[in-house]
Amino acid sequence: MKNSSFSALGIQPEILKAVNDMGFEAPTSIQEKCIPEILAGKDLVGQAQTGTGKTAAFGIPALQMANKGSKSPSVLILTPTRELAIQVTGELIKLAKHVNGVFTVPVYGGQPISRQLKALKKGAQIVVGTPGRVIDHLKRGTLKLGALEMVVLDEADEMLNMGFREDLEQILSYSKGKSQTIMFSATVPKAIKNIMNKWMDHPEMIKVEGKAQTAEGVEQYVMEVRDSMRVEAISRVIDMTGANLTLVFSNTKRRCDSLVQEFQARGFAADALHGDMRQNVRDKVMNKFRNGKIELLVATDVAARGLDVDDIDIVFNYDVPQDPEFYVHRIGRTARAGKSGMAITFSTGRKRKSIRFIEKIIGTKLMPLPMPSSKEVQLSKMESHLDEIVDVLQKGGLREYIDQLEPLAEGDFSPIEIAAALMKMKFEK
Amino acid sequence: MKNSSFSALGIQPEILKAVNDMGFEAPTSIQEKCIPEILAGKDLVGQAQTGTGKTAAFGIPALQMANKGSKSPSVLILTPTRELAIQVTGELIKLAKHVNGVFTVPVYGGQPISRQLKALKKGAQIVVGTPGRVIDHLKRGTLKLGALEMVVLDEADEMLNMGFREDLEQILSYSKGKSQTIMFSATVPKAIKNIMNKWMDHPEMIKVEGKAQTAEGVEQYVMEVRDSMRVEAISRVIDMTGANLTLVFSNTKRRCDSLVQEFQARGFAADALHGDMRQNVRDKVMNKFRNGKIELLVATDVAARGLDVDDIDIVFNYDVPQDPEFYVHRIGRTARAGKSGMAITFSTGRKRKSIRFIEKIIGTKLMPLPMPSSKEVQLSKMESHLDEIVDVLQKGGLREYIDQLEPLAEGDFSPIEIAAALMKMKFEK
Repeated sequence: MKNSSFSALGIQPEILKAVNDMGFEAPTSIQEKCIPEILAGKDLVGQAQTGTGKTAAFGIPALQMANKGSKSPSVLILTPTRELAIQVTGELIKLAKHVNGVFTVPVYGGQPISRQLKALKKGAQIVVGTPGRVIDHLKRGTLKLGALEMVVLDEADEMLNMGFREDLEQILSYSKGKSQTIMFSATVPKAIKNIMNKWMDHPEMIKVEGKAQTAEGVEQYVMEVRDSMRVEAISRVIDMTGANLTLVFSNTKRRCDSLVQEFQARGFAADALHGDMRQNVRDKVMNKFRNGKIELLVATDVAARGLDVDDIDIVFNYDVPQDPEFYVHRIGRTARAGKSGMAITFSTGRKRKSIRFIEKIIGTKLMPLPMPSSKEVQLSKMESHLDEIVDVLQKGGLREYIDQLEPLAEGDFSPIEIAAALMKMKFEK
Repeated sequence: MKNSSFSALGIQPEILKAVNDMGFEAPTSIQEKCIPEILAGKDLVGQAQTGTGKTAAFGIPALQMANKGSKSPSVLILTPTRELAIQVTGELIKLAKHVNGVFTVPVYGGQPISRQLKALKKGAQIVVGTPGRVIDHLKRGTLKLGALEMVVLDEADEMLNMGFREDLEQILSYSKGKSQTIMFSATVPKAIKNIMNKWMDHPEMIKVEGKAQTAEGVEQYVMEVRDSMRVEAISRVIDMTGANLTLVFSNTKRRCDSLVQEFQARGFAADALHGDMRQNVRDKVMNKFRNGKIELLVATDVAARGLDVDDIDIVFNYDVPQDPEFYVHRIGRTARAGKSGMAITFSTGRKRKSIRFIEKIIGTKLMPLPMPSSKEVQLSKMESHLDEIVDVLQKGGLREYIDQLEPLAEGDFSPIEIAAALMKMKFEK
């Protein structure tokens, strides 16, 4: 686990404040390695997947280095898709919350160009766009790159796969190759190397290292459910398995707190563990978790660092960890001291990519696990009821009850009907 | 429109703070009318639907009047379903954020009873439960109602419809009918009146009045989309209709701000209007909206009170308004000064009920409008392109271009192919 904090990376206070507002505790590997290099003005190639925090890795320095208040854009960020352009713009807007004079404008196809013309005219310091639409604006003369100081190619390999090579080269030639050039790419095939050689100046190569090794003895599952169903899914899994101690990981402090409320509303003895809590409060929570007064702990990666509780039955990754190393550390909180354990990671949509990346690094495939239906939860409860009954039967001493029931069994009801009725009375509602 | 604020209702500061944290600006009708009466200790029957803010209407006084730190529950809230029990508990936990000594425990079927036993043992001041499971706990002796001071029957008519009449009577008899009894019900059939007569002491009858009248000239639609798709749906509708000024209503200040960020990330000139903003800032935003510098305004009901802009094309109800009166006021922001206008309300799940209630009060059915597909957005763009072309054709003066194209048309290409190619070049990407 890394020990650095955002404040050690040379980020200005206004942006640090926004990072804290967003609930992030510590930089991911790629952020820790890239931010200082980009701030130092170097060209850089980051090998990173979606979900590793790469947007902030280039977004924070881009924001910090953007030419505040200038009329022409000083930063251009290219993304393969409209969706990613929206997402990157959204993150930049959040990061810029306390920064004055930096406006980010997205330009992508499928949106009336008039809106973009208006926005560009007002003066954007950062432009985020898909290559096609950016070329379009360049040709119309509505986007001028004369004052450009930084170009970022996000998911460069995807852009090449989508046939944007010519567009990219054209855009880079507009920027005259004199600006700082940053590239993020999951893979580095020959075509990427060509772009590097032609347009970049001795780029730093930064890669999330694949040193992660998977935890022993943990059954690792992936569960595909809609985001809004994750809390319900966790509840059902706990009810079905009868788990006692559960750890739920979230990527931000803020989400930890709201999740705790959601679990409490379902009757769980739940609490949070994150970096905004003072050490004595954290120790108290940890003790309560250890002795079972808290059954469900919602934690961030940083806060869970010292978590050495031996009896955790299930680790849930409510959010996909931003780093395979985090994944291994998280799931290693269960199956300790020779016990068995289970780790369940939630997935849908874009998260599948990050999960595939984790699988690649840890060299293990996560097994698909369907969300338990409420029927299955019910059934598994029945099974545990049957276990209880067997238990009582084995202990014996039932004569007295048999005597009481016999007259009934000689009437209209068969003994099995009577047993069923008793079971209903005992366990239903 | 109401003019009161939460602070005028006799609510203690700790709870007011939480209400503000939650982003609510002003009480809804039912809250305004019920909270002072309940705080005064009166029995009360509130006729209100889901989505009118009724949970806070009884939740705030319940929390304020609960016996802090006592071992036995002083408040019991009964709900027809497990889902509603979870929802009510969740809201109480949020309202109790700054209150010490009040714990709320949910008890409902379908969850291992052991978890509930543990929670009740620790000492709950407020218990929220479904009647069946509450009876179960009463029989086991794990829930004691000797110290009860308030019973709330939420969605009482639903509970009767679900066959809980006997259970309800039994629970009310446990509480000996001596506690303050509060009931919320969408309808007041005979069975409800019977309960009122038997268990309540001259209850105040409070009803959201049906005086709302619908705005003239507004086409009113309802759009069924997943919650996470609402921003996308709004973008598509705006792109398809070419709307210039749009108003998006949200129920909380906090959501206003995050929505503004989402729309900005899509390139909209968007801003917020809510009660946390100083008056001079609000005036500035309003002016920008009036002269088109802001094209999309995200507002709360309270902030939009003085909004007298004549050219609003569409009003979106991102959140279903909590009161039919709010609905009428919201949609009245469009179709002003003899212009046409359109109002689109988003719906799914539990919201359908609130929408049906609004329809009943305003005496109009909202027309279903499907979410535009991205193909339709594309097509409508084509149409506006055709309009542009017709415009140019009508203006004439094209001789020079015809001369240039003629040689091409005498070759392998038909004139229409050439026209198509030009259209592609002009409008695509």
